[in-house]
Amino acid sequence: MTLDLVPYRKAIEKELCDLLAGPGQEGAAPILPLYAMMRYHMGWLDADLNPVEADGGKRLRPILCLLACEAVGGHWHMALPAAASIELIHNFSLIHDDIEDHSETRRHRRTVWALWGVPQAINTGDTMWTLARLALHRLSDRGCSPTTLLHVVRQLDQACLELCTGQYLDLWFETQESVSLEAYEQMIHGKTAALLSASLAVGAILGGAEQRVVNRYAAFGRELGLTFQIVDDILGIWGDPAVTGKSAASDILTKKKTLPVLYAFHWEAERGYDDLARIYTQPSLSPDDIPSILALLGRCGAHEYTREQARTHYRRAENHLRAIGIDHPAQDALRELGHSLVERTF
Amino acid sequence: MTLDLVPYRKAIEKELCDLLAGPGQEGAAPILPLYAMMRYHMGWLDADLNPVEADGGKRLRPILCLLACEAVGGHWHMALPAAASIELIHNFSLIHDDIEDHSETRRHRRTVWALWGVPQAINTGDTMWTLARLALHRLSDRGCSPTTLLHVVRQLDQACLELCTGQYLDLWFETQESVSLEAYEQMIHGKTAALLSASLAVGAILGGAEQRVVNRYAAFGRELGLTFQIVDDILGIWGDPAVTGKSAASDILTKKKTLPVLYAFHWEAERGYDDLARIYTQPSLSPDDIPSILALLGRCGAHEYTREQARTHYRRAENHLRAIGIDHPAQDALRELGHSLVERTF
Repeated sequence: MTLDLVPYRKAIEKELCDLLAGPGQEGAAPILPLYAMMRYHMGWLDADLNPVEADGGKRLRPILCLLACEAVGGHWHMALPAAASIELIHNFSLIHDDIEDHSETRRHRRTVWALWGVPQAINTGDTMWTLARLALHRLSDRGCSPTTLLHVVRQLDQACLELCTGQYLDLWFETQESVSLEAYEQMIHGKTAALLSASLAVGAILGGAEQRVVNRYAAFGRELGLTFQIVDDILGIWGDPAVTGKSAASDILTKKKTLPVLYAFHWEAERGYDDLARIYTQPSLSPDDIPSILALLGRCGAHEYTREQARTHYRRAENHLRAIGIDHPAQDALRELGHSLVERTF
Repeated sequence: MTLDLVPYRKAIEKELCDLLAGPGQEGAAPILPLYAMMRYHMGWLDADLNPVEADGGKRLRPILCLLACEAVGGHWHMALPAAASIELIHNFSLIHDDIEDHSETRRHRRTVWALWGVPQAINTGDTMWTLARLALHRLSDRGCSPTTLLHVVRQLDQACLELCTGQYLDLWFETQESVSLEAYEQMIHGKTAALLSASLAVGAILGGAEQRVVNRYAAFGRELGLTFQIVDDILGIWGDPAVTGKSAASDILTKKKTLPVLYAFHWEAERGYDDLARIYTQPSLSPDDIPSILALLGRCGAHEYTREQARTHYRRAENHLRAIGIDHPAQDALRELGHSLVERTF
């Protein structure tokens, strides 16, 4: 990496700790467990609420935000409240997603709802989201003008709407027999690309970039997000369990409607086949079904198709970054970070 | 009523309809059911998503917001996006509360989660909250300056944090044997008073009031909210079923920790009694327990104590409103609205 990212990570963690410290005033004692549940989710407390250093995620989005701010000539310290806000938005959505997907573990730890029940987990997510909003007002104290702050607020509100829309589609897909490739792209755009895109746009806005440049960073983030999600789909079927930390072909066993499977469905439908559809109509799949499913995915070239889709989006991402025409170590770091997200497959 | 509130209600409803219409652009079809679930909750669609005119609530908060704006000399039309935003915040919290409290009906209709499941209901609430935020940006189009808009945004973000905190306490109380009267007041402050207070403050801000006046409206709203909740606690035990629409002593049967019961617990504890506590340790209460519980509440004067608390808060509310010193039909309407909320009991 061209740039040492450790100072950025440390500053992000400090800002997040600050935001989730809880109210200091008298009489706050009864509500401190609410803040403790959030700190647990972030990886700073264990289930008994003792300090711990657990995996709380890569903090990818806030780093992208700070790097974009710096690349366009801004001071990244100034953008920290926005970077932390974005990370809290991402984590609020994970807390709610875990309830909605009935996931009992995340990053090898029990999820908030699994530990403290669905009602408190919903409210803990809501609280984290509110703190994400309140964090943005700190930008004023760091010299951000009201107009710029409102621009940032609007950008993130819009990204949140896309996040919710993507989640709606994802939940809806579970009840649908078939899903169009367009609806799939709309879903991953909302669930993954929108907030990545906003992270970069917000960084560029706070760094003082003109709208043309902000749009390019937003487009870079969007294409990177799409690439990232499609690579994840590939790894969910063909990934090495030793690397992904998931069981082999995990997305097949859960009948997840990811791009390779959706492509195969459409390929078969166009040709009047229904081999895959017939297997998928079983109430549940077993490991014994995997070889024949992999063979059917092989017949239509689903692996190659999906890899090509990921490559296309990644090429577009690189082009947007190049078109900005900035020569700066932070810009190099953005390119390298982008590459590190996809090198898992090609 | 001094003022005809119908034009206000109509304008609020129109603004809300606009905000929940859903995206008009091409390709939006797959996500329209997400907007339909929100419109169902607002009382505009039935469970089959056909148009209907059901009870969607009194729209109390947005009306308070518009009246405060007008009373201080502003044009209430200008504050409509904020009024609608506040109503959406209130309704997002109801959608989530219904999941958290496992309530299958609200206003005689099935709740969103009861109809479409918990995962979609969580996300529908999240989406409504996001639309509430996006609504505020419309204030710019109506001539609101960036600084004033940020003031409004901050006021509502702060109210949302108190809402979440209050909900945390409410859920936590369910697991506690006893709750202090201070914690109870903190809970109803968050759950009821904070957003009512913000509704009035935001109206006054948008009407151009100076900070001293804004603070008075906020205090009026807070005291009114506390009064309202305490009156609700009285009705939950001694209310006439024909008027409240709930079964007699419904809050007793559900062992709800409302003010009269908490007061009786503390009255007994101070005197070394445990008659009420012993009845409440039963896993569940039956209608046969009600007469003895009512007798114990009578022994310590819980009804009188609670009514006196409500009166105290209501007197404070009136004093704040009077101290503003404005003579305007909208101000009279605020006083009358406040009175109509409490006249159910005194």
